[in-house]
Amino acid sequence: MKSFVEYSSSTDFPIENLPYGVFTSAKNVDKHIGVAIGDLILDLNVISHLFTGPLLADKQQVFKEDKLNAFMGLTKAHWSEARSTLQSLLDVSNPTLQTDAALRQKAFLPQSEATMHVPADIGDYTDFYSSIHHATNVGIMFRSKENALMPNWKHIPVGYHGRSSSIVVSGTPIHRPYGQTLPVEGAAPHFGPCRLMDFELEMGCFVGGAATELGQRVTAKEAGDRIFGFVLMNDWSARDIQKWEYVPLGPFTAKNLGTSISPWVVTAEALSPFLVDNYPQDVEVFPYLRHDDKFNFDINLEVDLVSEKSSVPTTITRSNFRFMYWTVKQQLAQQTITGCNIRPGDLLGSGTISGDTSDSYGSMLELSWKGTKPLRLHNGEERKFIQDGDTVVLRGFCKNEQVRIGFGKCEGKLLPAVPFEG
Amino acid sequence: MKSFVEYSSSTDFPIENLPYGVFTSAKNVDKHIGVAIGDLILDLNVISHLFTGPLLADKQQVFKEDKLNAFMGLTKAHWSEARSTLQSLLDVSNPTLQTDAALRQKAFLPQSEATMHVPADIGDYTDFYSSIHHATNVGIMFRSKENALMPNWKHIPVGYHGRSSSIVVSGTPIHRPYGQTLPVEGAAPHFGPCRLMDFELEMGCFVGGAATELGQRVTAKEAGDRIFGFVLMNDWSARDIQKWEYVPLGPFTAKNLGTSISPWVVTAEALSPFLVDNYPQDVEVFPYLRHDDKFNFDINLEVDLVSEKSSVPTTITRSNFRFMYWTVKQQLAQQTITGCNIRPGDLLGSGTISGDTSDSYGSMLELSWKGTKPLRLHNGEERKFIQDGDTVVLRGFCKNEQVRIGFGKCEGKLLPAVPFEG
Repeated sequence: MKSFVEYSSSTDFPIENLPYGVFTSAKNVDKHIGVAIGDLILDLNVISHLFTGPLLADKQQVFKEDKLNAFMGLTKAHWSEARSTLQSLLDVSNPTLQTDAALRQKAFLPQSEATMHVPADIGDYTDFYSSIHHATNVGIMFRSKENALMPNWKHIPVGYHGRSSSIVVSGTPIHRPYGQTLPVEGAAPHFGPCRLMDFELEMGCFVGGAATELGQRVTAKEAGDRIFGFVLMNDWSARDIQKWEYVPLGPFTAKNLGTSISPWVVTAEALSPFLVDNYPQDVEVFPYLRHDDKFNFDINLEVDLVSEKSSVPTTITRSNFRFMYWTVKQQLAQQTITGCNIRPGDLLGSGTISGDTSDSYGSMLELSWKGTKPLRLHNGEERKFIQDGDTVVLRGFCKNEQVRIGFGKCEGKLLPAVPFEG
Repeated sequence: MKSFVEYSSSTDFPIENLPYGVFTSAKNVDKHIGVAIGDLILDLNVISHLFTGPLLADKQQVFKEDKLNAFMGLTKAHWSEARSTLQSLLDVSNPTLQTDAALRQKAFLPQSEATMHVPADIGDYTDFYSSIHHATNVGIMFRSKENALMPNWKHIPVGYHGRSSSIVVSGTPIHRPYGQTLPVEGAAPHFGPCRLMDFELEMGCFVGGAATELGQRVTAKEAGDRIFGFVLMNDWSARDIQKWEYVPLGPFTAKNLGTSISPWVVTAEALSPFLVDNYPQDVEVFPYLRHDDKFNFDINLEVDLVSEKSSVPTTITRSNFRFMYWTVKQQLAQQTITGCNIRPGDLLGSGTISGDTSDSYGSMLELSWKGTKPLRLHNGEERKFIQDGDTVVLRGFCKNEQVRIGFGKCEGKLLPAVPFEG
């Protein structure tokens, strides 16, 4: 497949990818839906009339929206037709866009001139805890090697409801939060700036398909029709605040201070060449969680830390999405098993994705092993947790001999705490 | 104060109340905002042009919306002007509505002819755990009398993020869910219908005011401007599912099966005659949680259980909102202390509101003390938890010698589980 749009072979966004996002620009202050191709954005608002396939001909309006929810709310067949149409329109053999200079002029803009936005109204955001190495590491640190995994962990894709409002797009800075902590067990709690600020290397999955009714289940076997696509996600975490607040109802203010996502939603279809075997589950799961097909992906994940003292990034971890013990289908089945209704645009977080070696862990908590093993940055600085002024950059890509499908980046800078004046 | 609308002295909705809701009717299939007065609804869409006060004259559009978010997003001063305008328009001495037969005909309809809806788009829903008697009871049951309250409980208004999509309006039936449980400690988990289905007597608070920015805190002292109003709430809970799933990230599918709220939002201003002293807090809290003014309310709360075998309800508990240890201002301050942004229409659940006597507990778990003390219904039936076909009705009202301010009811019927066919 070859596009008339020229791009480098190392681009994240070849014609085989075509991720969706929402952008504005100096010329277009209203949010438009676009598709990334090379270094450009193809503005779907401008070319919505070209979606003339049997399913989308009377649904062109979804490409004129200021968010992806309506498009996500269609079916897998619609998404597939949209992809085919876009691949055809961008193909080097297709004159429609290529030779219409006026239309091309309106329809393309450089990504460097665009401001990206959260791509959908996220009605509900759920965060899971599905990487076995992460759960094991945390269990060892806070309990013991023998009891690292909780008894429910291999039976349930454990998850919890997160905060939708504080999900922000890559590039949005995050302030170090104030909060309560318990520095000394049994002593009085302390109020002040978080001292153990962390990132979490996650991926987010956007749910698609029509909204379900309250009481309706979506089993793992049915869930495939409802997986629209994926983004990178940094679930910023205030570890010391979390530790004091989370019993018995789970993380709350330690997580709602901001969750960063990458702007381009890479579709499940684009990722299909990178399907790999599901993680072996050595405990048989209940039927609602069973599916026979592969739904694990070989996605390389990397995290760079950029200190304010040096513009050169240090790659602090290399992990992979394939370390997920639970598939996204299983997560969605768990989400809905008691009848919880879902809506297009809902976001499922994977949980921290840690690999099986100490250089592939997905958080500073694990990489520095609770601060006992500081990381060394390329300029000699050390890090146990994230410091003020640090920028954390998540990257993700799939690669085989034919093609590279990338996610772009999910970046966020940690700003100093805003002093509390009560 | 006397209205030209006639109503009984026992109405929940006198001219001193004027709660807001969203309704449709056979005549109006589009959602309109209305105000309850006696047995009627005043349709604000029809009379939006009568909001001619200095603040609302150019904001009349908020009354033409299909939800309350835009109105909630104004300020306390706007809400107060709206209330004054409505009280004036409904006053027996005011001819505007009273003598305009055509307008009256369009503007009023009986509540019995209306279908009520969830009154706002709830961007995020947070549930707290703020009743000391409830937290103590649960602590005694699952730990011990000595360690009933967790160490953080008197320092933090403990809360967690809940599910927005599954918040439904009073009258919506709820299906008994399927889910995983662990009937025997240490044995294999079980999958099947929930066996310990419970209600939770709560109140919900709708947040108002302009949306805040990520990173912005709202202290308890500042929170008063952001409390729009209150509803009754039944936080249906699958106790056996909750027990197995909630470690370590908190309740998830045990709660997202449905949360019922009453349709009429009673404003904080209407409740102001019923302000009472805050619950005495015997541990000094951090400055962000401090406020000197009263923000506790004397709201009588009752729960009726109606068995399918008898249409006569049994009142199974009588509690009061004043048992809340933490105020709603403190809850909102906690929600935002790490910089979490809030939006008008956000909902804060109080947590189960249990009184200090065994007949004032807010859940079957407590009323039947984990099933050890069955309740007896008026027809001789017994209940440890909620049975299929049971209808749970929450009612709430404030009352003094001058006036009664009521919440209407929050009702839901538990339907049998839909068999799982995996």
